[in-house]
Order: sequence, then C-alpha cells, then structure tokens
Amino acid sequence: MPFVRISLLQGRSPQYLQNLSTTVHQAMVDTFDVPPSDRFQTIHQYTPGELMFDRHYLGGPRSDAFTLIAITAGKPRSDSTRRAFYQTLVTRLQQAVGLDPEDVMVVINTTAAQEWSFGGGRMNGDQAL
Amino acid sequence: MPFVRISLLQGRSPQYLQNLSTTVHQAMVDTFDVPPSDRFQTIHQYTPGELMFDRHYLGGPRSDAFTLIAITAGKPRSDSTRRAFYQTLVTRLQQAVGLDPEDVMVVINTTAAQEWSFGGGRMNGDQAL
Amino acid sequence: MPFVRISLLQGRSPQYLQNLSTTVHQAMVDTFDVPPSDRFQTIHQYTPGELMFDRHYLGGPRSDAFTLIAITAGKPRSDSTRRAFYQTLVTRLQQAVGLDPEDVMVVINTTAAQEWSFGGGRMNGDQAL
Repeated sequence: MPFVRISLLQGRSPQYLQNLSTTVHQAMVDTFDVPPSDRFQTIHQYTPGELMFDRHYLGGPRSDAFTLIAITAGKPRSDSTRRAFYQTLVTRLQQAVGLDPEDVMVVINTTAAQEWSFGGGRMNGDQAL
Repeated sequence: MPFVRISLLQGRSPQYLQNLSTTVHQAMVDTFDVPPSDRFQTIHQYTPGELMFDRHYLGGPRSDAFTLIAITAGKPRSDSTRRAFYQTLVTRLQQAVGLDPEDVMVVINTTAAQEWSFGGGRMNGDQAL
Repeated sequence: MPFVRISLLQGRSPQYLQNLSTTVHQAMVDTFDVPPSDRFQTIHQYTPGELMFDRHYLGGPRSDAFTLIAITAGKPRSDSTRRAFYQTLVTRLQQAVGLDPEDVMVVINTTAAQEWSFGGGRMNGDQAL
C-alpha cells in the first residue's frame, strides 16, 4: 500500500532514475512487507533553489546526490522492520546507483488501510484479496 | 480542511485538468463532509519516467490515464463515509472527464484540526466560524 | 525533524524564494522546537491551473501570493506551541517578503520519531545524539 515520493536535484539520467526507483521498490518488497506488484511512486526533480537540505544534521556529510524518500504507508511497521528496511535500502542504493548511504533520507507517514482505494471506488479491505 | 494533491501523466488539456479538479472537489463536498468553499488543491503532471504505477495491483487494468488523488484531511471519516466518497468520486469522474474507475486511486492522510492554519496565523478552531 | 513543502504560484525571483525558505525555517527554530540545522525543505511552483485555492474560506481575502506550507513533523506539539508558531510565522513572512498574513496557510502532519532515517540507514533515535 505504500505511495512513495522520491525527491532529488535535477541532472540525473532517465536510466539512473529508473534504477533508483526499482531499487527503492525492491528494498520495500524484501524488508518492508510490501507485495511485489504494490508499486506506486513519483519522482520529483528540483533546481538547487527548490531543494534545501542541511549537509550535516544527524548524519552526512550530504552531497548534491541527496535523495529524500517520503513513504505514505498503509499500516504500521515494527522498529525491527524499520531498521532492516533503512539498512537494506541504503546498502542496495549504494550498490545499484552509487549513492552514499549518508545521502539517503527516509520519512514514513502511516495511514489506515481503509484510507486507500486502489481503483473502482472500492475501499481497500472490502474487496476479496 | 482537506488539501488535495492530484498526480497524473503530462499531456492533458487545461480544460481537462480544470474539470478533473472541480469534479474531485464536488465529490468531496457532496459525500466527504467538506464545505463548498474549502477548496485547496494542487495538480502534479509527470513524465512517464517520473510516475510509476502497477497496472494490476488490487484493481485495474490501469491505463496511462491513471490518476492518484492524495488527500490530507483535518478529521477522520467513518468507513461508510469513505465508501460513499470513493464510489461517488469514480462515478463522477467517469461522467465528467471519461476516466475509467480503475484508473482512480485515492490515499487519505488524517491530521488534527489544530494542525491547520488557514490564514492570519490563527490556529484552526480558535477563530469564530 | 520536519520536512517542509512550500507551494506557491510561479513568478517569484530566486531571492524571494530563498528569503521565504529561510524565514519559514527560522520561525520553526524559534517557536516550533526545531534545531537550527534540521532544515529540509522543497519549494513547488505552480501554474495558475495547477494550484487551486479558495479566496475566502476561513480567512482571506487570499491573493495570488497565496503560499501553502505543508509540514511533516516528527513529534507532536502542544496547542500553545502551534499558536506561537503560526503567529510568528506570518509576522516574520510579512516583514521578510511582504506576504500578507492571510496568504499564509499551514498544514502539519505528525509522524513518529522512528519513522525517520536521516542517513546511513540509521533509524532516528538509535544513533547517539
């Protein structure tokens, strides 16, 4: 059920963005209890004046490759699941697109399952799964 | 109190977007307990590489007309209100702009009333209504 | 821990946007219990057809300078803190960039501290602060 918004500075190739998107999704499938076909993402590319981030707050140093991944989730996860996801995500992103783990920030926002409709005007949970 | 963000692929006419926006708002007024003048919306148009969506997860098949409606609400609604809203929304969108109901996805995120200020630095709920 | 998204119509200078961004952040530092270096913001510039807002709902009249500030916070704040923030924010924005207080809308969305990772795959709260 997640809806994922990925924010970064402009200038990356379409191939980079595709690899980024796929890697984020696969980390969620493998460690965040997300079904493989439950993929809904947007990518937001900013000019330097439109994306402000501190280079050192609680981590860093952050570079111009800084990537903020904002996840709207449909159910809560445990701290151990969150830890595994955060760690897997940065490891995979470093391998796949060369992102420094310190350049990856994640924010999760949790909603209720009934706050989702995937189509047809059906409330999530009402349909046969 | 909702703030509504509508995401879809680029290529639609200004008239289509206006009809889409108006229809979403009217469905909220009629079935989601939203005052008629409480309209705050943004429309986000993406290239194909910036908007990823599964064509079949819990619905579909989804087409390139896929439209994701993300609502930040200021109070919770009951399941029956949500159901009525989801159903009315897709019916109206099909009538108004020809959207297939399977192309309409909704995500609601609920906040507290005091987390809103509509202007003048006044906390929502403090002002005389 | 906030992530702040600022939405407004296109047409402002880079200098205006920078002042807007800095002023919003400073108001959060001074009245919303945010550390000075905890600055993560995006600015979203819309065409008139992409940003819909009512000119009079619970405030106004709103002008084309309307600015919507959506804050994802990492902990709840008291009503008195919210009030002080809303009021300080609009006063400062009027002084810094000439924004009419009625043109400033705020929406806050509260998450849990463990729903944040600032880098390195570390869950927020796990690292030594």
